[in-house]
Amino acid sequence: MAEIARGLRNVVLTETRLSMIDGEVGKLIIAGFPLEELAPHATFEEVLYLLWHDRLPNADELTTFTQQLSANRSLPETTLTVLQVAAQNKLPLMDALRMGVDTLSLVDPEPEATSIEANLRRASRLLAHFPTIVASYWRLLHGQEPVTPRSDLSHAANFLYMVNGQVPEPAITRGMETYLNTVVDHGMNASTFTARVIASTRSDMTSAIVGAIGSLKGPLHGGAPGPAADMVFEIRERAARSGRSVAEEAKDWATAKLQSKERIMGFGHRVYRVRDPRADVLGGAVRQLFQQTGGLDFYNDARAVEDAMLQALEEYKPGLRIKTNVEFYTALILHGIGLEPEIFSPVFAISRVGGWVAHILEQYAEDELIRPTTNYNGAYDRKWVPLAER
Amino acid sequence: MAEIARGLRNVVLTETRLSMIDGEVGKLIIAGFPLEELAPHATFEEVLYLLWHDRLPNADELTTFTQQLSANRSLPETTLTVLQVAAQNKLPLMDALRMGVDTLSLVDPEPEATSIEANLRRASRLLAHFPTIVASYWRLLHGQEPVTPRSDLSHAANFLYMVNGQVPEPAITRGMETYLNTVVDHGMNASTFTARVIASTRSDMTSAIVGAIGSLKGPLHGGAPGPAADMVFEIRERAARSGRSVAEEAKDWATAKLQSKERIMGFGHRVYRVRDPRADVLGGAVRQLFQQTGGLDFYNDARAVEDAMLQALEEYKPGLRIKTNVEFYTALILHGIGLEPEIFSPVFAISRVGGWVAHILEQYAEDELIRPTTNYNGAYDRKWVPLAER
Repeated sequence: MAEIARGLRNVVLTETRLSMIDGEVGKLIIAGFPLEELAPHATFEEVLYLLWHDRLPNADELTTFTQQLSANRSLPETTLTVLQVAAQNKLPLMDALRMGVDTLSLVDPEPEATSIEANLRRASRLLAHFPTIVASYWRLLHGQEPVTPRSDLSHAANFLYMVNGQVPEPAITRGMETYLNTVVDHGMNASTFTARVIASTRSDMTSAIVGAIGSLKGPLHGGAPGPAADMVFEIRERAARSGRSVAEEAKDWATAKLQSKERIMGFGHRVYRVRDPRADVLGGAVRQLFQQTGGLDFYNDARAVEDAMLQALEEYKPGLRIKTNVEFYTALILHGIGLEPEIFSPVFAISRVGGWVAHILEQYAEDELIRPTTNYNGAYDRKWVPLAER
Repeated sequence: MAEIARGLRNVVLTETRLSMIDGEVGKLIIAGFPLEELAPHATFEEVLYLLWHDRLPNADELTTFTQQLSANRSLPETTLTVLQVAAQNKLPLMDALRMGVDTLSLVDPEPEATSIEANLRRASRLLAHFPTIVASYWRLLHGQEPVTPRSDLSHAANFLYMVNGQVPEPAITRGMETYLNTVVDHGMNASTFTARVIASTRSDMTSAIVGAIGSLKGPLHGGAPGPAADMVFEIRERAARSGRSVAEEAKDWATAKLQSKERIMGFGHRVYRVRDPRADVLGGAVRQLFQQTGGLDFYNDARAVEDAMLQALEEYKPGLRIKTNVEFYTALILHGIGLEPEIFSPVFAISRVGGWVAHILEQYAEDELIRPTTNYNGAYDRKWVPLAER
């Protein structure tokens, strides 16, 4: 029997030019750019173009690409119908997103086309619909009418406009862009891998993306920043009630968690042994955002929580070098942008679909079916017994 | 850089008790039974119970399970709406199946429940809807009203009833059961692997099955028997026009294909070096079916085609031991059952979902995230250039 590579943890599937993670030194490269060189400067449209074409667009290319995206924001009738029924049934947001994206096959104007150019057009259409599906479903779930998308806003600004019905301030949009840029790709995570496995059968891009959404929904996928936000809120409330400082409440909270061997959300990562570079980039963006929009109270409290957690972790798990991860700062920045924790995972998908598309295109180019084997550990020679004799 | 395991071809993912393929000796074991010991005897319900519980049911257990399936055949309103719109847009059958199954999250009566028992109930509901979605969509696509499912028929018989509006003869139902039993599981194929990858994130069963349908749709997945049926039809037509024998026409057809280096569909398999055991089992079922229902003319012609192909393959590729595969006999048996080639792939899904469910349950029990790594082959230190300077 061959050795089992459980979880495929140390198995190298393929080569990619899309992103590189060096967990030992805390480095993340996105399409040739160190994350910190790219994320705070680029619009999300520029990052998408970069991932899909391996270079930044010039002004004309960016205009064309931006128009392609903004022309494809309106939801098809059937998609809206499905979202309405889903909202009546109070379906979780990720299920509604999966189901909504799945119906986009109904409006593919060139379903048989499989050239790179056709798939790039398909990718633009699919990706352009993500924010509309998420924002529309969010409003339907809260008893509000969906907001019609605007084609004169950027991908990021239009999403926030569709959530709130108000065009966001430039500082808010910048925060949103930096977040989207930061989490757009991250090596061979489970949802990206799902997209590649489906694409490896030469199946269509919609099928691959629908499968990836299904993976992203899973609690083990990682990156779910809701709990980290909830933690900061809870500790702030405790401090407000008790009159003690946030730092003191945070210390007690951390001690209780660590003594009962619970994980503290927002700290530690399977890959990064040092600080997650995404946490650095988002940390900078968070500070900038709160300085420009006010709300430094919340920001300072969150930093006090972070310091208390890191101190407690060092005390209870000395030498493990557990650091603040991307989830913690994601929670802060998305809260600063004005989004509720329940929508954080679908917002993550709004970004990550950019990476899925790029990986699907790489997989189509590689054109190699992904199919491991298994060892059999069952019986070999059972004999048929008629029903009456069982 | 670590070695790349492209396609994961020789990587062992895990252990399974569900099926074992020994391609060297042409052996397939399904849940402890050699295929030929199980497939011709069991009902599809018995095989499902076996795969999901690792033993055959007794009479009471089978009654309960059969009722659980037959009580869940009717389509929810939204599913039917989506299928109607899909039919208006002439969407391919596999897309309609994926989209239809995706909407079943809307009617999950226990969406939060993740116990084994809850997942077995969920599996029964999902699997029970597959034939109704496929048959309803098939009729809608042909301008016919869907046929309401009957709860007094078996899974196999009710599917054919919903396709044709007529209760099938027992010999036809038996042929259908043997087909469904034969292709229900086949090791770590790409769709089963997709289901396991999604389930490995602890995502829900519907998400995993929707992803698997997306994989099955891909032309590289294999098992698409439509082309093999088309080949037999085409050669018969040529013989009818030319007045020559089917054997002679088949020989010319094979020679032309092999000279132009085209693949002959229905022959050869990536895994089996000798005859595919599923071809043996289906071959027997096909003979029995045509003997009982008439149509031996077609059967004899198909065998003449098979003989001519094998002879030509031995002549052009001596020593390669290329044998008739499961697709060839699938084409014959599904044609004998009265189904059109276009519906063959969704009918395959009606069977294979039984294996997907069993693998998803194994994956939940294993609870290990599946995530390989990649080697990076892109740039490392690109510098940000403002738009105006590009």
